[in-house]
This record gives sequence, C-alpha cells and structure tokens, in this order.
Amino acid sequence: MNQLDYFFKPKSVAIVGASRDPKKIGHVIFRNFVEGKFAGKIFPINPNAEELFGHRCYPSVLSVEEKIDLAVITIPAPIVPQALEECGKKKIPAVIIISGGFKEIGNVELENEVSRILKKHKIRAIGPNCIGALDPYSGVDTFFLPRYKLERPGKGKIAFISQSGALGSVVLDWMAMKGYKISKFISYGNAVDVDEADLTEYLANDKETDVICAYFEGVKEGRKFYDVAKKISSRKPLIVLKGGTTSEGTSAVASHTGSLAGSAEIYSTAFKQAGVIQAKDLEQIFDFARVLSTQPAPKGNRVQIITDGGGYGVMTTDWLIKNGLQLAKMSHQNIEKIKKACPPHVVVKNPIDLTGDADTERYKIAIESAMEDPNVDMVAVIILFQIPTLTPDIVDVVSAISDRKQKPLIVLAAGGRYTEVLKKSLEDFGVPCFSYPEGAAEALRALYEYGCCVNAKGAKR
Amino acid sequence: MNQLDYFFKPKSVAIVGASRDPKKIGHVIFRNFVEGKFAGKIFPINPNAEELFGHRCYPSVLSVEEKIDLAVITIPAPIVPQALEECGKKKIPAVIIISGGFKEIGNVELENEVSRILKKHKIRAIGPNCIGALDPYSGVDTFFLPRYKLERPGKGKIAFISQSGALGSVVLDWMAMKGYKISKFISYGNAVDVDEADLTEYLANDKETDVICAYFEGVKEGRKFYDVAKKISSRKPLIVLKGGTTSEGTSAVASHTGSLAGSAEIYSTAFKQAGVIQAKDLEQIFDFARVLSTQPAPKGNRVQIITDGGGYGVMTTDWLIKNGLQLAKMSHQNIEKIKKACPPHVVVKNPIDLTGDADTERYKIAIESAMEDPNVDMVAVIILFQIPTLTPDIVDVVSAISDRKQKPLIVLAAGGRYTEVLKKSLEDFGVPCFSYPEGAAEALRALYEYGCCVNAKGAKR
Repeated sequence: MNQLDYFFKPKSVAIVGASRDPKKIGHVIFRNFVEGKFAGKIFPINPNAEELFGHRCYPSVLSVEEKIDLAVITIPAPIVPQALEECGKKKIPAVIIISGGFKEIGNVELENEVSRILKKHKIRAIGPNCIGALDPYSGVDTFFLPRYKLERPGKGKIAFISQSGALGSVVLDWMAMKGYKISKFISYGNAVDVDEADLTEYLANDKETDVICAYFEGVKEGRKFYDVAKKISSRKPLIVLKGGTTSEGTSAVASHTGSLAGSAEIYSTAFKQAGVIQAKDLEQIFDFARVLSTQPAPKGNRVQIITDGGGYGVMTTDWLIKNGLQLAKMSHQNIEKIKKACPPHVVVKNPIDLTGDADTERYKIAIESAMEDPNVDMVAVIILFQIPTLTPDIVDVVSAISDRKQKPLIVLAAGGRYTEVLKKSLEDFGVPCFSYPEGAAEALRALYEYGCCVNAKGAKR
Repeated sequence: MNQLDYFFKPKSVAIVGASRDPKKIGHVIFRNFVEGKFAGKIFPINPNAEELFGHRCYPSVLSVEEKIDLAVITIPAPIVPQALEECGKKKIPAVIIISGGFKEIGNVELENEVSRILKKHKIRAIGPNCIGALDPYSGVDTFFLPRYKLERPGKGKIAFISQSGALGSVVLDWMAMKGYKISKFISYGNAVDVDEADLTEYLANDKETDVICAYFEGVKEGRKFYDVAKKISSRKPLIVLKGGTTSEGTSAVASHTGSLAGSAEIYSTAFKQAGVIQAKDLEQIFDFARVLSTQPAPKGNRVQIITDGGGYGVMTTDWLIKNGLQLAKMSHQNIEKIKKACPPHVVVKNPIDLTGDADTERYKIAIESAMEDPNVDMVAVIILFQIPTLTPDIVDVVSAISDRKQKPLIVLAAGGRYTEVLKKSLEDFGVPCFSYPEGAAEALRALYEYGCCVNAKGAKR
C-alpha cells in the first residue's frame, strides 16, 4: 500500500481540534465526516469535551486504543508540533494540516520544526495552510466551507490539485454546479512534505483518476515535477494552469504564496517537453478535462463539421483553423451516401450544412458516415436545437453513436433553458458539449496534442 | 418620422399568410401579435379563412379599410411579388418578408423582381429569407419559433443585428436565459432593401438603444457601412462579430449566405479605422455590450484589482497585462487609509489582497478609495463569495458605489449556485460580472478602446 493512500482511503480518521463551536473549522470538518459518506471510524480529539455528535471525545490521539490511519489537524499553529509528536508516537501514517500561521506569514522556523517532526516519524503530510482533501468515493472531506456556500461534486474521473485554497474551493463549487464529477480534489498549501510532483505521481497510478488537472503558481522542485510529468503524460493527460505568466503577475505571486513564479517561457517550454497540456484559464482546464476524460485519442487533426446553422458552421471553421486543425475531406462514397439521403438544398461539404429544416434522421446519416470515414479524425456536431423540425431524440442518436468510441465526437449547442436541458443529457451520456466555437476548437486541439503524445510513445489508452 | 420606424413601432400590422394550421409560420407569427404585448391593430390576411383568434380575416391587404403600417409576408416565394404589388397599392410603408426561396437557393430573378416592386412603390423591406424583427417595447415579434424552444429577452438597451437567422435566434434564446435585455433584434437575411448599414444608422438614432451589436459574414456595400460606422462610433458603441476570418471560413460563408466574406485583414483594418469594436466570438459580443451599456468611458488604461483570493488576483493581473492594460498605482494617501482600516496581513499593493477573512467593510474602504483615486481609471473587484467571513450585503455596497458612475467597475466571481444568485443581483443593479479573468480583461480593454475613441473626438457619453 502506498503511504499516500491513507489520505484518501483511511479506515479511521482522528480530527484533532474537533469542536462543539459551529464556527470552528474543527467542528465543520468533524461534521463532514459524521454526516457525509465516510464509512470508517471517526475519533474527535478534544481535551475539553466528552462527546461530539454521539462520538466519544479523546484528549489526545494517544488515548485512542485503535489504529488511526489519518489525522486532520485544525488546531492553532503554535501547538501543531506537539500534536504531530503525538501522531508520531501513535504511528499515524498520514496527516492533513489545515491550520495556517506558518511560512505564509513569515513563521519559517515553525514550519521547519513541523518538517523535522514529520521526517523523524516518517509521517506523510498535506499542508499546512490548506483546505486539504476531498474524495467522493471514500467520503473524506476536510473542506471547511458550509455546503450552502460550497457544493461538492459527485464521483467521477477528474482529479484536481490546487496550491491555492481559495481558488481550489471556487473551482470545486463551480464544478459541482456544472455537474462535472471528480475522483479526488487536493489543496496542498505550503507543501511542507507532499508537493505537486508527489500528488501527480500518485494520481497517475490512481484507478479512479483518468485525467489530472492542476493549478499552481510555482513548482517547489522543478526537476522533480518535470521528471514525473514526463513519465506519466503519455499514460494519463496532465493539464496545468500556471498563475503568474507576466512580470506583473509574477510580482503578485510573490505577495500571494511567496512562490518564485519564474519565467513564463521557461515553464511553457518545460511543460511542452514533458507532455503537459497547458490551459490558459480555469474554464479551459475543464473544457480539456471533459474531452480528455471521455473521448479516445485521435489519429490526426482532420475535423468534420456537421451543422444545422450555416453561421455557426462558419465560425467553427474559423476557430478550428486558428487552432492548427484541418477540415477533413470525406470520401466520395460517404458524400454520395449523405447526398442521396438528404434533400438537394443540404450542402455536403465541410461543414456539412443540414440546414434549418434538419431532422434527427439527417443528423444520424451524416454523423455515422463521418465516424466511419477514414479521412476524418474528429467530428464536431453543431446542433441548434431551436429549429422547428428537430426533435429531442437527437440526444439518443448522438449518445449512441458517441458510445461506440470510434473517434472523438463533441457537440456545439447554444441557447436558453430548453437547449441547456438537452446539453445536460448529452453531457451525462459522456458527450462533451460546448456553447461556442472557440472553446470547442481549443479542446479539440488539446485532444489532438494529447493524441500526438500518445502516438509518439506508441502507448495506448 | 423615419420610414424604418414602421418596422418597430407600427400602429397596425397585417400578417399576410396568417393560417389556422399551427405548424405554419403565418400561424405562429399571428399568434405572437395576438397573445403578445403588441397594442396596435392586427389584420390576418388569408383568402381561405373567415376568422382567426377572434380577428376577421381579409382576402388581401387591399380589402382592409384602415391604414396598415407594416405587412409581414409569410407566403411561398412565387406569390410574394403579387402580395407586394398589393402592399404598394395599399401604400404600406414597410414590409418584412419572412419567406425563403430567393437568391439563397439561386432564384436571383425572383429576388430582383421583388427589388423592382419595392422600389416602384417606395416600400422599405427587411428580408427576404429572415426571421425579422423583435421589439420588446412595442411587442412586434415576427420570430416564428415556439417560445418553449426560444425564449424572448425583456426590455433593455442593447440592439442586435444578425444576417444569419439561425444564429440570431440562438443568441436571442441565450440572452433571454442570461437575463440580458434588448431594445431591438433584427435578422435581415438576404437584405434585398434594408441592410446592415441602414439598420446601424437607424439604431444610432434610436433612444431605446445604447449599444449596437452585429453579426455578419459579409457587408453588402462596404463603403456605405464604413461611412455609417465612422459617423456613429464615437456616439454609440458598435460591436461587430465577423464570420469567415480564415480562408476555410470564407469558403464556408460562400456555401452559407453566398456573401463575399472578403479578406479578414481588410475588414479588420476598416473596422478599426471606423471605430468599430471587434468581438472574437458570440459570448464576447455580450461581455462587451454589458460593460459598454452600463459603465462610463474610462480616461485611461490603469486598473486597480481588489481581491479576497490571491490566485484569482494573480490570474487577473496576467490577463490585464496581456490585454495591454496597466496596473494602477494608487496614491500614498489612499494606500495608508486602507492599511489603517485593515489588519496587517492585508496586502495593499496592486492587486489589493483583502485575503480570505475579508468582510464587507474591508471591501467598502478599498473600493471607495480606488474609485476616488486620481491614479486609477478602472476598478476590477474579485469577490470569492465562498469565504466564511463575507456576508451577502457586499452586493448592496458594491451596487451603491457602482451607481455613482465615477469610473468603470466590474466584478469577478466564480462558483456554484450561491455565487450565481449574488452575481445575478449585481447584474440587475447594472454591475457587469465575469466568471473568469480572461473575459473580464478583454471587456475592460474594449471599454478602454471605446474611451479612446470618445476622448479623441472630444465627444461625451
């Protein structure tokens, strides 16, 4: 068993600082474990209380008779070292130190002391100054923000690592609303022990994770992260958003996490060499992750567009080209097949414009032909659901074709509530949906780049 | 009275082709007028019916005794010329020809005949092959898509012109869902008479319109549009999204509207010279429109960032710089004022990081100081509503400050349902909100460019 497993799949958890006061972080976290889906044993550690939510309180981890896999530390910074010594004596393999008040406010010596204790007892630690970990499979949840302000996503295949706690919680909240699902979510703060490289390597071997996403401002040990990234990037997509890419942004980083943001060019080049997929903003991370976690790697960059609105087809063409992709040229045989099945005003080029009186049957023939055509690597289907002739069974047809996973397929659709309901259904079936051509084209580019990386290494997904 | 007024504020409307069959376009449009907010007279024209929704049917516009301001033509293309002759005899000043089947499918001669009849009778016409016009103030609504598939936005200050009908309806639907409000919405199709230049000029003088947005693939008469744009662009922001900006996109345009998309560079240069604000995608049109319709023109490009999350501040810094904006340097006096009012861990630089324990009072002092500081031209306020110490009254404080319109102020906030509710409140108060730094920075850049255009002409908004 990997020692990092104890962070995500502990059989027993001690909350050091579990409190009766609902405003205290230790209270919120303990409650997460009691009321959430965590199925293991829970031990509240609090010398001043006898009982909490029906659980007997212990004055110290040392007074717990049973084995403890994970300790979550929520007590003030000055008394953290003592608590860690006790964790060491108790042979607890993993601790998450939520408490702030260390290096980030200048208390370097206190953080060094924490580091020494962890090494002495061979404890692995996430934090300090972090929000910790969330694993919807095991029910581990150290996020201390109330659920009405911060929703939690369901079980999925996307892992997210964030140096910044605030940013991490915003992303989590937004993912939950969007219906994106996660495997693990980790805010690692000051990284006194476990850092972005450790977590990336761990997630690369995690069966619940298909795609790894990360936000950070600086890397603790550049070479270590580079080596890990290079090793895993052809096996599992690794998407990184780097904060601080301008000199002004770099200065802002110094005031924020005190990291050395470094030159954007150096990072960018290193990321590229290591096969890391770089995202330019938060939304793009998840646009990439949605496509990379659901679609097979393409063999090339030739995209077939199928649309029922000419204008959307034009804009999508523009954005695909701007992203270095090509318009596919379908075989003569398939072109004739589609032409035969459609009325004469349908334009069977690229884009294929099924026009404003398209129906589900027309889409079915066009999409199936594109999916089996040897000259097509990826298919972008634009569905303007508003047109009068189109019925909602288009969702079933597209999902069924996508399910065969012959090649990447994405859907573009924009509109109001009616459209959003149908898009949500497609997303639930594993078909990535986009509102606008720009985001869709960038996601296909990322998929293509990953495909190149996979094909170059001869690896298979 | 401008003849184009009859399209939007008619006192009486005839629907040529009003039908009892709910699947017919003439039925849907007539119903829009009967059941909608239109307060004028309505005449269904249908030789085969006696009555429709309690309204007497007429066999022709000529059999209507009263004056008709606007005729909406929904009959098949071959019989459109005859209907137009009758409109001419009846001295109807304006017609919207919804019917398709003209130049777009090769029937050039039929379209030329329509053109001749219109000129002969001095009728102004929108269309053919279009969705027509929507005016939430007067209740004119020729959009023939059912409301459950296509919602309608409320009364506002943003006008939208679209050459493409499908694209227009998608945009309309999406705006309605987002709560963006409009003054007028026009899909003008083949533009046999009224074109993008006529509509732009008309909207420039329209009191209900503060910002004009347009999507087109090609301009009918380049010089005419250029002259109009140049004339109005320092008085009212004109935002254009041009479809077909790559050579592949240009080919797609040819298959779509048959327009000559022209060189992207030529358009781009001409737009710039004419003071047109160019949008790169649909979402950006409305990001720009929201900011331009609510915020004053800035005097310069110096932006003060105020945040409660360091990571978001870093990313916003990066994007502002990438968009050619500068970080403002607040006066010593204001910096000291904020420092005095905040705990020592608050970072009073640019970004001002109020940190994760910020409250409404801290935001109030920081925003007010930035708004009155002579070294600040625009203010970007990042509010991560998830932090425990922040209460919803931040919405009231930010709205009240923004209402003074001292200088542009926008809000950045991302998250789930709780955050979305508060953002919607801010938007309703006229504070433009953005989820991600990229979109926010691009919108501030557009505002700055418009400010330059206004300042250069010495004009005032």
